[in-house]
Amino acid sequence: MPSLSYQPEVLQLASWAEALKPSSIQHLLDLTARPNIISLGLGLPAAELFPAEPFARVAAALLEHDRSALQYQPAYQPLKAQIVRLMAQRGVACREEQIFLTAGAQQAMSLLTRLLLEPQGCVLVEETIYSGFLQAITPFEPAIVTVATDTDTGMDVDAVEAILKRERPALIYAISDGHNPVAVSLSQEKRLRLVELARRFGVPILEDDAYGLLSYSSNPLPPMRALDADWVFYLGSFSKILAPALRAGWIVAPEGLVAKLAVIKESTDINTTTFSQRLIAAYLETGALPEHLAVLRHEYRTRRDAMDGALRSTLPPTARWRQPDSGLFFWVELPQGCDTSRLLEVAVTTAGVAFVPGQAFSVGEHRRAAHCIRLNFSNCAPAQIAEGVARLGQVIQESAQGV
Amino acid sequence: MPSLSYQPEVLQLASWAEALKPSSIQHLLDLTARPNIISLGLGLPAAELFPAEPFARVAAALLEHDRSALQYQPAYQPLKAQIVRLMAQRGVACREEQIFLTAGAQQAMSLLTRLLLEPQGCVLVEETIYSGFLQAITPFEPAIVTVATDTDTGMDVDAVEAILKRERPALIYAISDGHNPVAVSLSQEKRLRLVELARRFGVPILEDDAYGLLSYSSNPLPPMRALDADWVFYLGSFSKILAPALRAGWIVAPEGLVAKLAVIKESTDINTTTFSQRLIAAYLETGALPEHLAVLRHEYRTRRDAMDGALRSTLPPTARWRQPDSGLFFWVELPQGCDTSRLLEVAVTTAGVAFVPGQAFSVGEHRRAAHCIRLNFSNCAPAQIAEGVARLGQVIQESAQGV
Repeated sequence: MPSLSYQPEVLQLASWAEALKPSSIQHLLDLTARPNIISLGLGLPAAELFPAEPFARVAAALLEHDRSALQYQPAYQPLKAQIVRLMAQRGVACREEQIFLTAGAQQAMSLLTRLLLEPQGCVLVEETIYSGFLQAITPFEPAIVTVATDTDTGMDVDAVEAILKRERPALIYAISDGHNPVAVSLSQEKRLRLVELARRFGVPILEDDAYGLLSYSSNPLPPMRALDADWVFYLGSFSKILAPALRAGWIVAPEGLVAKLAVIKESTDINTTTFSQRLIAAYLETGALPEHLAVLRHEYRTRRDAMDGALRSTLPPTARWRQPDSGLFFWVELPQGCDTSRLLEVAVTTAGVAFVPGQAFSVGEHRRAAHCIRLNFSNCAPAQIAEGVARLGQVIQESAQGV
Repeated sequence: MPSLSYQPEVLQLASWAEALKPSSIQHLLDLTARPNIISLGLGLPAAELFPAEPFARVAAALLEHDRSALQYQPAYQPLKAQIVRLMAQRGVACREEQIFLTAGAQQAMSLLTRLLLEPQGCVLVEETIYSGFLQAITPFEPAIVTVATDTDTGMDVDAVEAILKRERPALIYAISDGHNPVAVSLSQEKRLRLVELARRFGVPILEDDAYGLLSYSSNPLPPMRALDADWVFYLGSFSKILAPALRAGWIVAPEGLVAKLAVIKESTDINTTTFSQRLIAAYLETGALPEHLAVLRHEYRTRRDAMDGALRSTLPPTARWRQPDSGLFFWVELPQGCDTSRLLEVAVTTAGVAFVPGQAFSVGEHRRAAHCIRLNFSNCAPAQIAEGVARLGQVIQESAQGV
């Protein structure tokens, strides 16, 4: 019995799972649970802006009149119809048959990587990206090729082209607007080129647009999905525009792949919480979303401006950042050599302020973002933002002086 | 550029996904969507028994008083505490630190296979099992070894032992009570032996207990998790006892693995719908569940008895079945050679009744269940059950006569 020679009493995990560690974001959640911490860390929307009263009304109506809202159900078609309308506001023409409902954008990534990525397959990403995407691909133990991100214009598409000329990754992960964490929007020229490269080399783009409807500019660019329906998988989310706790989002996918996504989804969790689907559809049908989005954009713009002002008046002149056009974050570069992971420990323990260190978003072992920090401006009121940034400025100052 | 030689214009999927087909259950959903069909097919709970009014009350209170019910949140501790109490009713002693919340039992399977199963790894299952488990392991392209199921005592544990003596699968999938689809409960002797084998050979058991709280016997056996906390991963679900549309379930896991499960879950969909967690916790805190479970058991027992009576008075003497002690299904064996997949098409199109053919639950290419059918008794009222079974009996009769 040779197979019994290796420690039968120890539970064997899949090899990738043996190596698995808690994410930095989870560690941060623990840190910021301490009392009196001002957290500029996580990307939480403002709870006081959730449409709780309208939700209460539609929930009561649903539970009184329609028990099918609690039953196993196929994906709710009227919600898809509402999403088609929402996409039109975002500048994307699509059809219900292309809409696939998910338990948020994170699940969309998880399902699409299962659809597109082989074990040990290759993925093309920026050097500094949303850590949840890295988590989604980790089980595949992938080969990862990276390109840099320009903080004014986004992903380096020349580097993308150079890579595609020599290898064929399973997908390119990209965030067109409100880049998390780099807080940049991809220039129109780069959107056009990236889509052209995807077509030419036959490599699909996963366009993560979780923040796309939170633009503070008067004329936001449409996402890449507006340029191509075959090579761009668009990922949308209700987490930031309605409420994260409903876990609802969507993919705009090439129509021929929706049936396959449905089988993958069914194997994963049967279906997206039907009660959430029904609540959201009923809310959208009241016509309240455009006004709600206007309120969010106004309030978040105010908070963004408050953070920009606080950073200007507090941070040393060596710090650099760009005011974001969309999304929920500032990306601040401190002088090279500053280790912001260490700075976080000091900030939390001595000054009561938290952020996410750049290293948390770094792909692989390189430390090119180790001197950067991500600051969230959506979750705190302006006065708290000012206080949090003041505390942060103090910590940076003291750390620079070696105190 | 050799990598471009293979059709760059065609989107490449992961190889397992290329081969992916819609599940038989999805096909059945389409079939039964026709008007005037009595469906004894899917395992739907009775919508008229959902606790919609109490849910409406707790939803209103939550949305009025606690906006954190709509925010990103860690797994809700008070729900874990309630589940510990529920497990005690099921005969299982466990602690909150061992409870892991999931988006239903299907997601529990998906997460646990990611934790335990390598690509191309080996899984031990019965020949005839819940098709959702097969879907959950398909992306791993696993080697599957099977054992038979005795319709009186469950899984063939002698065969399990023989297999474990020669190889070491990553896990054993088992349903102790209300087996879906075979409608059998594992004998106490077999529970003890299976747990002993898991320990001795170091192979964990995934114990799917989605129906465990729906027992119609006066003294149901405790699940295998009551016998062992290290080698049994217990899967529970609120879908059948409260409402499927909330997508909420749980794993009772070895405590040391809960942190790893949390990272896998985070990569998959961040978190189980917090609003569902909060609704369920608030409902359970009202103390209404024991009475609700008593109502479900009473009503489902009545429907089970109605189906048993209808089968006795309608089916030919060559048909065999056993009245189930728990769960939502009858498993009926028709004479060998009867192709129940073909019978289904006839039943739906000519008689307006649907069931699931045994083949839908068969592992691999063998057709040992091709003469069997699964009948659900929870979703239809007794009169509809009688009518549905009468239609079914007619179709079977005609098919036996070659009409």
